Amino acid sequence: MAKARVVITLKETIMDAQGQTVEKALHNLGYQGVSDLRIGKFIEMSLDGGPKDQLESQVDEMCRRLLANPIIEDFQVEIEQ
Amino acid sequence: MAKARVVITLKETIMDAQGQTVEKALHNLGYQGVSDLRIGKFIEMSLDGGPKDQLESQVDEMCRRLLANPIIEDFQVEIEQ
Repeated sequence: MAKARVVITLKETIMDAQGQTVEKALHNLGYQGVSDLRIGKFIEMSLDGGPKDQLESQVDEMCRRLLANPIIEDFQVEIEQ
Repeated sequence: MAKARVVITLKETIMDAQGQTVEKALHNLGYQGVSDLRIGKFIEMSLDGGPKDQLESQVDEMCRRLLANPIIEDFQVEIEQ
């Protein structure tokens, strides 16, 4: 059984209001050195066997169909067997 | 300037209702091979310099104080310089 890990982030050109709010909160707590904070999603799942490249393209398809919004989000898929 | 990446996930013993819902949606789309799907958060930020272990313990502290809820969540910190 393989493991897939997906990281979904807003595209660089999209404003991340949630990230900006958390960055400001960290500054208020004294962490002045923090910048460019952005928040995304992390999804992990188990997958029934198959060759690695086939699983990768399957998870890629899941991202485009359901997990991510390809208009405003980028995603990275990692398969571990 | 260093980069920090944080992955925050629900502890294994905590039920992930959102993950279960997404897993069911993937099954309905025909991806029957998916199981144990869990959803977490991914946070990346830039940090002003300093030695790697110092930055790591700083981000660790941020997680415990603000970014994560250590009662129900685990977090992993990765620093790239």
